[in-house]
Amino acid sequence: MDIGYARVDLDRERRQGLPEIVYGPGKQAGEIAGIVKVLLDRNDGPVLVTRVGPDTAGQVLAVVPGGRYDDAARLLVWRPALLLGFGVAVVTAGTADGPVAAEAAAVANALGLETTVIRDVGVAGIHRVLAEVERLREADCVIVVAGMEGALASVVGGLVETPVIAVPTSVGYGAALEGVTALLAMLTSCAAGITVVNIDSGFGAALAAYRLTRRRP
Amino acid sequence: MDIGYARVDLDRERRQGLPEIVYGPGKQAGEIAGIVKVLLDRNDGPVLVTRVGPDTAGQVLAVVPGGRYDDAARLLVWRPALLLGFGVAVVTAGTADGPVAAEAAAVANALGLETTVIRDVGVAGIHRVLAEVERLREADCVIVVAGMEGALASVVGGLVETPVIAVPTSVGYGAALEGVTALLAMLTSCAAGITVVNIDSGFGAALAAYRLTRRRP
Amino acid sequence: MDIGYARVDLDRERRQGLPEIVYGPGKQAGEIAGIVKVLLDRNDGPVLVTRVGPDTAGQVLAVVPGGRYDDAARLLVWRPALLLGFGVAVVTAGTADGPVAAEAAAVANALGLETTVIRDVGVAGIHRVLAEVERLREADCVIVVAGMEGALASVVGGLVETPVIAVPTSVGYGAALEGVTALLAMLTSCAAGITVVNIDSGFGAALAAYRLTRRRP
Amino acid sequence: MDIGYARVDLDRERRQGLPEIVYGPGKQAGEIAGIVKVLLDRNDGPVLVTRVGPDTAGQVLAVVPGGRYDDAARLLVWRPALLLGFGVAVVTAGTADGPVAAEAAAVANALGLETTVIRDVGVAGIHRVLAEVERLREADCVIVVAGMEGALASVVGGLVETPVIAVPTSVGYGAALEGVTALLAMLTSCAAGITVVNIDSGFGAALAAYRLTRRRP
Amino acid sequence: MDIGYARVDLDRERRQGLPEIVYGPGKQAGEIAGIVKVLLDRNDGPVLVTRVGPDTAGQVLAVVPGGRYDDAARLLVWRPALLLGFGVAVVTAGTADGPVAAEAAAVANALGLETTVIRDVGVAGIHRVLAEVERLREADCVIVVAGMEGALASVVGGLVETPVIAVPTSVGYGAALEGVTALLAMLTSCAAGITVVNIDSGFGAALAAYRLTRRRP
Amino acid sequence: MDIGYARVDLDRERRQGLPEIVYGPGKQAGEIAGIVKVLLDRNDGPVLVTRVGPDTAGQVLAVVPGGRYDDAARLLVWRPALLLGFGVAVVTAGTADGPVAAEAAAVANALGLETTVIRDVGVAGIHRVLAEVERLREADCVIVVAGMEGALASVVGGLVETPVIAVPTSVGYGAALEGVTALLAMLTSCAAGITVVNIDSGFGAALAAYRLTRRRP
Amino acid sequence: MDIGYARVDLDRERRQGLPEIVYGPGKQAGEIAGIVKVLLDRNDGPVLVTRVGPDTAGQVLAVVPGGRYDDAARLLVWRPALLLGFGVAVVTAGTADGPVAAEAAAVANALGLETTVIRDVGVAGIHRVLAEVERLREADCVIVVAGMEGALASVVGGLVETPVIAVPTSVGYGAALEGVTALLAMLTSCAAGITVVNIDSGFGAALAAYRLTRRRP
Amino acid sequence: MDIGYARVDLDRERRQGLPEIVYGPGKQAGEIAGIVKVLLDRNDGPVLVTRVGPDTAGQVLAVVPGGRYDDAARLLVWRPALLLGFGVAVVTAGTADGPVAAEAAAVANALGLETTVIRDVGVAGIHRVLAEVERLREADCVIVVAGMEGALASVVGGLVETPVIAVPTSVGYGAALEGVTALLAMLTSCAAGITVVNIDSGFGAALAAYRLTRRRP
Repeated sequence: MDIGYARVDLDRERRQGLPEIVYGPGKQAGEIAGIVKVLLDRNDGPVLVTRVGPDTAGQVLAVVPGGRYDDAARLLVWRPALLLGFGVAVVTAGTADGPVAAEAAAVANALGLETTVIRDVGVAGIHRVLAEVERLREADCVIVVAGMEGALASVVGGLVETPVIAVPTSVGYGAALEGVTALLAMLTSCAAGITVVNIDSGFGAALAAYRLTRRRP
Repeated sequence: MDIGYARVDLDRERRQGLPEIVYGPGKQAGEIAGIVKVLLDRNDGPVLVTRVGPDTAGQVLAVVPGGRYDDAARLLVWRPALLLGFGVAVVTAGTADGPVAAEAAAVANALGLETTVIRDVGVAGIHRVLAEVERLREADCVIVVAGMEGALASVVGGLVETPVIAVPTSVGYGAALEGVTALLAMLTSCAAGITVVNIDSGFGAALAAYRLTRRRP
Repeated sequence: MDIGYARVDLDRERRQGLPEIVYGPGKQAGEIAGIVKVLLDRNDGPVLVTRVGPDTAGQVLAVVPGGRYDDAARLLVWRPALLLGFGVAVVTAGTADGPVAAEAAAVANALGLETTVIRDVGVAGIHRVLAEVERLREADCVIVVAGMEGALASVVGGLVETPVIAVPTSVGYGAALEGVTALLAMLTSCAAGITVVNIDSGFGAALAAYRLTRRRP
Repeated sequence: MDIGYARVDLDRERRQGLPEIVYGPGKQAGEIAGIVKVLLDRNDGPVLVTRVGPDTAGQVLAVVPGGRYDDAARLLVWRPALLLGFGVAVVTAGTADGPVAAEAAAVANALGLETTVIRDVGVAGIHRVLAEVERLREADCVIVVAGMEGALASVVGGLVETPVIAVPTSVGYGAALEGVTALLAMLTSCAAGITVVNIDSGFGAALAAYRLTRRRP
Repeated sequence: MDIGYARVDLDRERRQGLPEIVYGPGKQAGEIAGIVKVLLDRNDGPVLVTRVGPDTAGQVLAVVPGGRYDDAARLLVWRPALLLGFGVAVVTAGTADGPVAAEAAAVANALGLETTVIRDVGVAGIHRVLAEVERLREADCVIVVAGMEGALASVVGGLVETPVIAVPTSVGYGAALEGVTALLAMLTSCAAGITVVNIDSGFGAALAAYRLTRRRP
Repeated sequence: MDIGYARVDLDRERRQGLPEIVYGPGKQAGEIAGIVKVLLDRNDGPVLVTRVGPDTAGQVLAVVPGGRYDDAARLLVWRPALLLGFGVAVVTAGTADGPVAAEAAAVANALGLETTVIRDVGVAGIHRVLAEVERLREADCVIVVAGMEGALASVVGGLVETPVIAVPTSVGYGAALEGVTALLAMLTSCAAGITVVNIDSGFGAALAAYRLTRRRP
Repeated sequence: MDIGYARVDLDRERRQGLPEIVYGPGKQAGEIAGIVKVLLDRNDGPVLVTRVGPDTAGQVLAVVPGGRYDDAARLLVWRPALLLGFGVAVVTAGTADGPVAAEAAAVANALGLETTVIRDVGVAGIHRVLAEVERLREADCVIVVAGMEGALASVVGGLVETPVIAVPTSVGYGAALEGVTALLAMLTSCAAGITVVNIDSGFGAALAAYRLTRRRP
Repeated sequence: MDIGYARVDLDRERRQGLPEIVYGPGKQAGEIAGIVKVLLDRNDGPVLVTRVGPDTAGQVLAVVPGGRYDDAARLLVWRPALLLGFGVAVVTAGTADGPVAAEAAAVANALGLETTVIRDVGVAGIHRVLAEVERLREADCVIVVAGMEGALASVVGGLVETPVIAVPTSVGYGAALEGVTALLAMLTSCAAGITVVNIDSGFGAALAAYRLTRRRP
């Protein structure tokens, strides 16, 4: 559906079982509101807008009430999904990885996944992640969020047998190359069967986790 | 267990539910045979050796009989797992992606996944992949194997709602940068929730697919 | 012709049949106005200034009236060319590619090409571009504007037989590497005979399209 | 059509007006012969196989007679197209660029384009290319083949008004980065409206030139 | 000599025949003034400060009078050298290369070289540089300042027999990679015997030109 | 001392306390023998030649007897040093890292350090390295040898308080980028105070360990 | 210990002998104060916060008195360690390397190391570093801080026999690639046994120096 | 002049004062001989062929006698120029840099420059280059040949006032990146006014030195 400044894909929900999620950056509050309205009207599922600042979020909510803004995740949600009985553990290496983890958890949650965040268990203090093994193994899937050298993904990948989705973050400086080092490191992890999404893409990891709940009919 | 030239992780199977898979390159036939023997003796599950040439494979099988060599996949397998009732579609962009797809399919199959290979459906002839949508949607998970610009992953990611694991290959020349271009392209796919493994890692994709069958107890 | 702060190439129009187009960034309004005046005086064809902000544009138009400012394309045009009967379809993957597409379309139009913009048909929803195949095939040439993994170029390249000019954009984050990923992907497209211009260069694509109308005498 | 080791796209000729061209590397003589036979049987247009060594070519021709092998271009051709009255000038910077130029010219010729090769006119001796301006301007399109710094594309782009397709080559050493430098240089050419194909892709340039002859119906 | 915030190399002038030139960025006006005073007191030759903004320059001159500020070159000079009878032609590809050329010319001039600036002769209009061949050949050395693809260096290198010092600039966008493309292109120039300095280093080129005037005793 | 084909630094031993170690590649057996003879004659300490194949080693030993060849380390040693009472633990992530570890251990040993090699404790099976904590803590310094994502360095760096020297190896494929990924990962390790040497430089790590034994007089 | 916005590792001091050092960027003054309080309460050793601006530092000190702020090093310190009788020479190539050297020296000093800073001895005036050889040799360890081409590390590495820790800085422009060039150069130094830390990581070098004082019990 | 397989630039000698030098790789002995003959017949100056192996050289000399083959430089020379009274010092960091230095010296010599080679004075033993300062200062120009971190260029640049031409070599491994590290390091040298040529281009440095002898008429 063409609403002048965007072509809204109203069909994705029906066609693919995946909700259309609006990417906030570069869109005006008015444009976001317009797209959200159409999605709420024509679809039945959750409606999300990612990477929205608090000011824009306020303006959008003033026009399209009924939504909720998650400040840490910078996420707007209307009609969050019912819980599907699928648990995701989101685990971070350090405090600076927090915002990406918050986006992953909030998006996953809005799509019906149960989420637990396990914070600050970077491998330089290996006892921290070992102390959380049980919680990690209780999840149906683990999202590992780490910047710098991204080593946490390898350690977690060796501790659980469930799917591990690694999210490199742009945390670090110099040779961290704005997340490229963590990305490359996660792709070459010695822990077999880990998969990777784009740098800082908490959103991508959440969608990948959501896909895990979808099976052939 | 230390067998002189390697420390064999006999515990992974029990500890993590994932089989120990031997990476062939850089190991002599005798060393591979030794490791395989230990794994067969002490563990119960499947034993695999990846990236083995036919000559080495023949020598290993002469010492440790009972295995099977898959020429296309360059894979040795003993005690393949029973089928788990989980279907994986392995789809390739072009003929040159074949060997990587063969490795993905053979490893997945040896671990108990049902696999279908859908060949040569690169997006330059978009009707080819569209003609396979039903088979893609019938799978529990899709592994997309593509080199050059890797665009097939994005198209498939938009056609199915199940997990999509993208494997960039080193197929192509010049600006393909030995697979780096396909890797970057898959990581920045406009299809949400796709995950990516290392270049040419059919093995990694198969293990990631296998993890999808593991759930919290 | 040397006008103190620039050497204006008054001869290009006659010599090469291509208009001299002024690149706005780094030039003051007064300098732009001076150059435009000379070009209007000495040449007969269209005069364009690219990548001009609205403030500068206003100041230039105040000094050199008779031009028109296109806000979306950030383009100033005097004496647009008569239509040449050559149709260009400018197609984008997502809303964020809009400004580059606007520049491509506006420059092409000012040079006498008929342009149609087909928006938001990224390959993650492949039905969108398929729904536009007829419009794409009716054009004499297609300009594909896409960021992230740039896969749209490959799909379009496989759908039409006319020239396809791919413009990678800097849309995306992380592994998108500010457009380099889309650039590399388009260069290694599996669709044969696609050509590529610089990142975000809507201007370059328009000029390349214009060259298509020039033939040996 | 699936012939066991490949899925042959018999429809491209009808669907898109572009011939299916077989990429030789990685295919056995027998496989190539099989694909060529199918294409000759089911289609009417030219059939090409690129990047074939003389030995393989001989074996293929022994099985599928009636073709011609071009040693310099490493190209096999059956049923070359009738000339379309469209002239392409292929111009090279140095002798080492010869093989890429030969591929461009031979493929273009097999598809029905008239081709002229203008050799060794690198810009370090600028009089060489200036001496050829008339021949360049008489062509409907110019393919510039250059390695090292690729500067010839910019000079030619400024001399003609017709389409210029630049092919960077992997000629050079050190900072030439196996063609990446020429590629980047051509993409940032100061000559407006030049387009670029992949490194060493004489084939890609020829197809791009062929597309120039295709217009909306 | 240690003046608290810097160790001033008073000996370079005597030891090496090269003046100590102060790099402005990151230094306060007071610190610059202090260093300049010491150099003026203890040495006899010219004293230069590069990359100084007009405000800082004004403050320094208020404290250390007798110098001159060149706005275009962002250069402060005290005691410029007498002319040495050695002529340098500084030639640029486009207007945006102006500031780097201005630095090269002003530094060279302050060190006693005669400088001529030849502007806007980029190779897309090859007649422009050809029209200046005589002036280029009259110089003892040519400094070529060019961004984007940097092709001017190759053309000039083929036109003169004297030393050519190429300065890549960060002019351009996208694939220009902030000057890296021009740098690589100049290093792989097909014109033999060209030498290259760092991106945007008009200063480095001027010093290299100055060294040309120094010979063994 | 100039011996025709090389200038031998006979003074390093006295001047710097570090032995001159001959880098084998690119030198003929005869040249190596010549250099070794001079070093044995004029100096008193150990003489080493690194990266020598078994054939060359045999030829050198035939001419200069009294040395010993270490096949795994590809190292020739004459007059190994007495043990200095300083213990180095060399720890590897996987079997493929073995040759680099062997070089590190053998060079360190020849220089008088006690060395222990702890093999195959990559972090994907974290219990392996945890089982070795005591041995790691008993060393005066730990050299960590790891390819792929190099995560072992971070884990070890968090387990011991002594100096950790990380050696990235070129083990891995695709995104491992021939060791660059491990190198970058180790440089951005979240374990504070780790230092890094060049890819595959077991030799460099051994020398760095040896320097730890040198203190101001 | 989880204090809501961070998990404080109270155990590192006891477990590893290394103090927990707080990385300032991205943390609010209140958060820093909270973490510092916990560390002061539960641990006995020094507490440091790195990369803090003066305003934040003032706010933290207002809440947690007893600390000292080092403006040049941008470092907050409480309970600095007693001197351990281990001397570190911090040597810089140029004035712009000063802040990184200041961080290295201040952190090292707070951890109980004696530090001397030797400034501005870049190799372009080689007499400067030669004049400091005695002071360099008197140190137990040398930290070399250099940007641009980082050559000082090689020269110093050849002058002393004690450990040399090289810190590349982001000083320089163009081909300096924000410190990557100095990093690569230091890693490939011809002076054997030099080790390297991340770009601009004065902190990392100080910790590496501190580890040198830790020996097996 | 077009001789079938190449267009020989007979005019360069007259036009530019620079000899045409034939680049050997990729040319057959017969082709080289043909080109050399034409150059000997039509021109008066020296004729050189670079990068020729001994077998090819022998074949060429059999057909075109009167030339001389320099094995170390892999250079063929006919009619070497008379000495021009201009002295070049070619200085290397290590033995592995020898072949590049040999090419530089032999080409320079064939063009009439007096050359001295100063070997193995890498900066890790700084006394070596200091011992050669007088010889360096006696030259009219210094060519510095160095791989790895290329630091020798900076030290030499600070010792002499004459032109310094730096040649990075591909000597080194890992982070040396096949010469790219040395190239970047030389471009960002802290020694002002150094210029750089392509990796391993002894030829380029020699030509740059030769240009130093050419002055405006």
